[in-house]
Amino acid sequence: MYDLLKTIDDPAALRRLERASLPALADELRAYLLESVSQTGGHLSSNLGTVELTIALHYVFDTPMDRIVWDVGHQTYPHKILTGRRDAMSTLRQLGGISGFPRRSESEYDTFGTAHSSTSISAALGMAVASRLKGEDRHAIAVIGDGAMTAGMAFEALNNAGVLDDVPLIVVLNDNDMSISPPVGALNRYLARLMSGRFYATAKKNVERVLRVAPPVLELARKLEEHAKGMVVPATLFEEFGFNYIGPIDGHDLDSLIPTLQNLKQLKGPQFLHVVTRKGQGYKLAEADPVLYHGPGKFDPSEGIKPAAASKKTYTQVFGEWLCDMAELDPKIVGITPAMREGSGLVEFEQRFPARYFDVGIAEQHAVTFAGGLAAEGLKPVVAIYSTFLQRGYDQLVHDVALQNLPVTFAIDRAGLVGADGATHAGAYDIPFMRCLPNMTIMAPADENECRQMLYTAVQLGTPASVRYPRGAGAGVATVKKLEALPVGKGQVVRETARAIGTAPRVAILAFGSMVAPSLAAGEIVDATVVNMRFVKPVDEALLLSLAATHDAFVTVEEGAIMGGAGSACVEALLQRGVNPPVLQLGLPDRFIDHGDPAKLLASCGLDAAGIAASIRTRFPEQSAEAAKASKLVA
Amino acid sequence: MYDLLKTIDDPAALRRLERASLPALADELRAYLLESVSQTGGHLSSNLGTVELTIALHYVFDTPMDRIVWDVGHQTYPHKILTGRRDAMSTLRQLGGISGFPRRSESEYDTFGTAHSSTSISAALGMAVASRLKGEDRHAIAVIGDGAMTAGMAFEALNNAGVLDDVPLIVVLNDNDMSISPPVGALNRYLARLMSGRFYATAKKNVERVLRVAPPVLELARKLEEHAKGMVVPATLFEEFGFNYIGPIDGHDLDSLIPTLQNLKQLKGPQFLHVVTRKGQGYKLAEADPVLYHGPGKFDPSEGIKPAAASKKTYTQVFGEWLCDMAELDPKIVGITPAMREGSGLVEFEQRFPARYFDVGIAEQHAVTFAGGLAAEGLKPVVAIYSTFLQRGYDQLVHDVALQNLPVTFAIDRAGLVGADGATHAGAYDIPFMRCLPNMTIMAPADENECRQMLYTAVQLGTPASVRYPRGAGAGVATVKKLEALPVGKGQVVRETARAIGTAPRVAILAFGSMVAPSLAAGEIVDATVVNMRFVKPVDEALLLSLAATHDAFVTVEEGAIMGGAGSACVEALLQRGVNPPVLQLGLPDRFIDHGDPAKLLASCGLDAAGIAASIRTRFPEQSAEAAKASKLVA
Repeated sequence: MYDLLKTIDDPAALRRLERASLPALADELRAYLLESVSQTGGHLSSNLGTVELTIALHYVFDTPMDRIVWDVGHQTYPHKILTGRRDAMSTLRQLGGISGFPRRSESEYDTFGTAHSSTSISAALGMAVASRLKGEDRHAIAVIGDGAMTAGMAFEALNNAGVLDDVPLIVVLNDNDMSISPPVGALNRYLARLMSGRFYATAKKNVERVLRVAPPVLELARKLEEHAKGMVVPATLFEEFGFNYIGPIDGHDLDSLIPTLQNLKQLKGPQFLHVVTRKGQGYKLAEADPVLYHGPGKFDPSEGIKPAAASKKTYTQVFGEWLCDMAELDPKIVGITPAMREGSGLVEFEQRFPARYFDVGIAEQHAVTFAGGLAAEGLKPVVAIYSTFLQRGYDQLVHDVALQNLPVTFAIDRAGLVGADGATHAGAYDIPFMRCLPNMTIMAPADENECRQMLYTAVQLGTPASVRYPRGAGAGVATVKKLEALPVGKGQVVRETARAIGTAPRVAILAFGSMVAPSLAAGEIVDATVVNMRFVKPVDEALLLSLAATHDAFVTVEEGAIMGGAGSACVEALLQRGVNPPVLQLGLPDRFIDHGDPAKLLASCGLDAAGIAASIRTRFPEQSAEAAKASKLVA
Repeated sequence: MYDLLKTIDDPAALRRLERASLPALADELRAYLLESVSQTGGHLSSNLGTVELTIALHYVFDTPMDRIVWDVGHQTYPHKILTGRRDAMSTLRQLGGISGFPRRSESEYDTFGTAHSSTSISAALGMAVASRLKGEDRHAIAVIGDGAMTAGMAFEALNNAGVLDDVPLIVVLNDNDMSISPPVGALNRYLARLMSGRFYATAKKNVERVLRVAPPVLELARKLEEHAKGMVVPATLFEEFGFNYIGPIDGHDLDSLIPTLQNLKQLKGPQFLHVVTRKGQGYKLAEADPVLYHGPGKFDPSEGIKPAAASKKTYTQVFGEWLCDMAELDPKIVGITPAMREGSGLVEFEQRFPARYFDVGIAEQHAVTFAGGLAAEGLKPVVAIYSTFLQRGYDQLVHDVALQNLPVTFAIDRAGLVGADGATHAGAYDIPFMRCLPNMTIMAPADENECRQMLYTAVQLGTPASVRYPRGAGAGVATVKKLEALPVGKGQVVRETARAIGTAPRVAILAFGSMVAPSLAAGEIVDATVVNMRFVKPVDEALLLSLAATHDAFVTVEEGAIMGGAGSACVEALLQRGVNPPVLQLGLPDRFIDHGDPAKLLASCGLDAAGIAASIRTRFPEQSAEAAKASKLVA
């Protein structure tokens, strides 16, 4: 088992193999992939789809001298297995283990870290230009999916690359079988036309015919044909952008892939290869339902994924249910997602309100301004977006929504640490980058029902508003069907310290969102007052002032960057009123947090109950009232 | 003079005019425009180019019921003049006057506020979808320039719109004469091909021929021809995206524009009209040099713009000179601009180092990740970008640069208030949105030479770094040719209070960048210690602690949002070390600041010397040492 694969510790070993043995290697690689992902969890469908393409790229190109940039990067498991990380697959996405995405620090074969979509052409173009400037003879290859091509950033890169006639750039469009998921947007429709067109079938037949005879003998003839093929097809969109377009070819056929790539390697200027693959290829269950097998947990490959036992509702589900309820109440509600129907919990909404559902593709910039246009006409758009992806629509949030004070609601999922996906997907910065914007309201729910009511509150406001909630399930608090707006800018004291005023230190913990529960537990340990702040902006100034009068110190706790975060919102409000108590600010530190189990990661940042309590004890040690009076703690 | 124009107080009056009198109206409008802009300053070339298009749009469409969204919006002066703001043009871009951009709060004809490029199709699509959902029969028209079309956001919108078959959306591509500025990127090259193609000439001739005979009689024939024209031309890129493409037509010929728009109005689904105009049209001097006349100050129209007397160097010039000097010293330096060669001071750099100069088009996202790719290969990219436009590349800054700790230098121009351009262009948020990112270094220079040395420091760091400097000239401090790196994270005390320790209040002003000079003056007035902090991140913690030991209170001053800003960086650092002095945070308030004279605007925010001194006196009034000891001020 894995006889061939075991011998491949780097791509050089791969390149020493006979061409004829590559299909067998592909079979082993696919089997190994299925075995390892079923044991660790992780992305599956997309990786099954890139087995042959990965082999072909490393076989034809001189990696790591030639640079491969994998767009999104969750399809790089075959690449990882072939570049010295075969055994490390057992640690995939776990604390201390290898990442589920390419990382420069992990391997010299990971030339550019990816995870967010559509960055690869820009990065590869930078590399290609650098090699030209440095006089180095190497290729830069961007491998990008058809979904990722819909993002504006990819077009910006094509637009720039197309006029640089001599750059050694190859863009490989990894076009997943169109029959699998319905096309979103005009580009995908266009690609489907390209693929279904007559010339595809013809070209494919030609390649097959030529190659069936005798590859080495007819190499020249084949090359000529490849060249001719490029000339007879009608000009494609990619040619209009200045690329030499070749394809579509079958991305699971090594006999198409390898000679085509060898051919491309010889050509000058920007090249565009259109490859057609199928998500889940080679594993029947994944082929049949690539969405289910997109990113499964552990499962038995022989049995497939079993329906999970009903567990606690996720915040995503709470949002999805709320949106449907809200849409029923108010015909002005519309839902917008940048290509995250499943991830954002919009499946039911789409089914029930198809005319009010908009999947705009991987297009966060457009999503936000499109919502602005809807809001300008009196509708009530709700943009469902991950915290980390809202970074893509930041200027639109500032310039089109906040500045015009338009009533767009942002349902911000995956706020805080996200676990296995790691730093690239963490929602660590939304509070600092939103809080500085005038007109914004920012809420963070402590539990599921508060999330639901905050979403309702956001829509009622008539101004830009956001609700940020974490990945996964909450504590299991049942949601209340009836929707009631919360008082804006008001926090809630959930625990009062039993220590008498004058004895010290009386500490008030100001907790935000997901940190309310561990703060409450910490408050029990150290006997502190605990506040569910609810609103990051406007922050509850009156409550802060009243607490300042009766407490000796504050502790702020948030699942987000400390720098510029919600804790600083509290401090700024107090300072503005001339009050300057001791404040301990807890939250995400000033470093990127790797992948791993979310609970362990939070604990490593001191953001579980024990950690919060320990930090408070260290900073505000228990002491006698006399000692406290003498210290700085009591103002 | 202006006999016709005087009668047009709204577009309804325009629509009552005879078609035959429209050319005369265009002449008056153009003359009025030239007269008023020459007296107030403002954008000229682009507005001269849209006179006929504006007349035609308001003549054919039923505004404000039909919605026009003007991309970028600096070409809306004719629109403002025709929509009731003719007399208000004398207040253009001045404090309390009308804006240089469309604003929803200014007029019902300004359907969506614009200023940043490439938002119009998204917003208009939102409006078109809204009208469909609400059952209202209106059109939404996006008017977008060929430059703005290169931004990814515009493509995201086209991609989304092209599959919505029944939306009443019209995109008017206002394509400026290609001979004026060299095309950047593949799309512009493509548009030039479209225009120079045979079918353009033919189509134009056909339209002219048909219209010359007798418009009403041959209306049907003309319609058929228009329709046929759409079918015989080769499929354009815009048709591949699902739009019905018509054009190119002459955007200064009302006899082409009006019937074509009338025709388009009848068609279903997304329409794309390609209009060719010339910047500066009708004013010879502007036609000859549209860049010079893009946004002039006041001038005499009969004499044209006179070369300005040599004045103090702007920060933009300081940057441009530094980049050339740096590029000479280090062959790894490359310069990148997202379509802001002149504005960012890169004209000389392009001339001297053409192979190392990259204008990537209006493509901030791509610009940042392209720089990341270059940096990954060992080059030292410098991205020259306005603070407000870096918002467009925010996710790329987080995900591609900061997370990978790649050595990209950001030269951030227009940090702080920008004056006549107003809130849309203010650089108010770069500190909060950058400061929360690990690995980032952020500097703010107090004068021109410090700016130069900070840029050098940034490049030497080998990690992500930014230097934020304001619009316009500094104090006139001469730059020192020799480049020397500053000590990282170290501020500089520039004034010490003469008050003895124990007497109170001893105040330390912590000033950032452009606020050092007024803070120093304020420090003289109130006898405070004044620090040029230099680094927003890492902030000089040691200095803060030592000052805390010898002062009673701090004042932070920055030209940026207070919320999450540099002042909070100081507070967070102190709190983290268990020090909680009184701090007064001064900076930009939590509201958007309108256009107007920059000095007056800063004064209105209390950010001039007098304002800073007054705020300090109010908050930390002079008092006897005894009183101070008794108060909270002395810890």
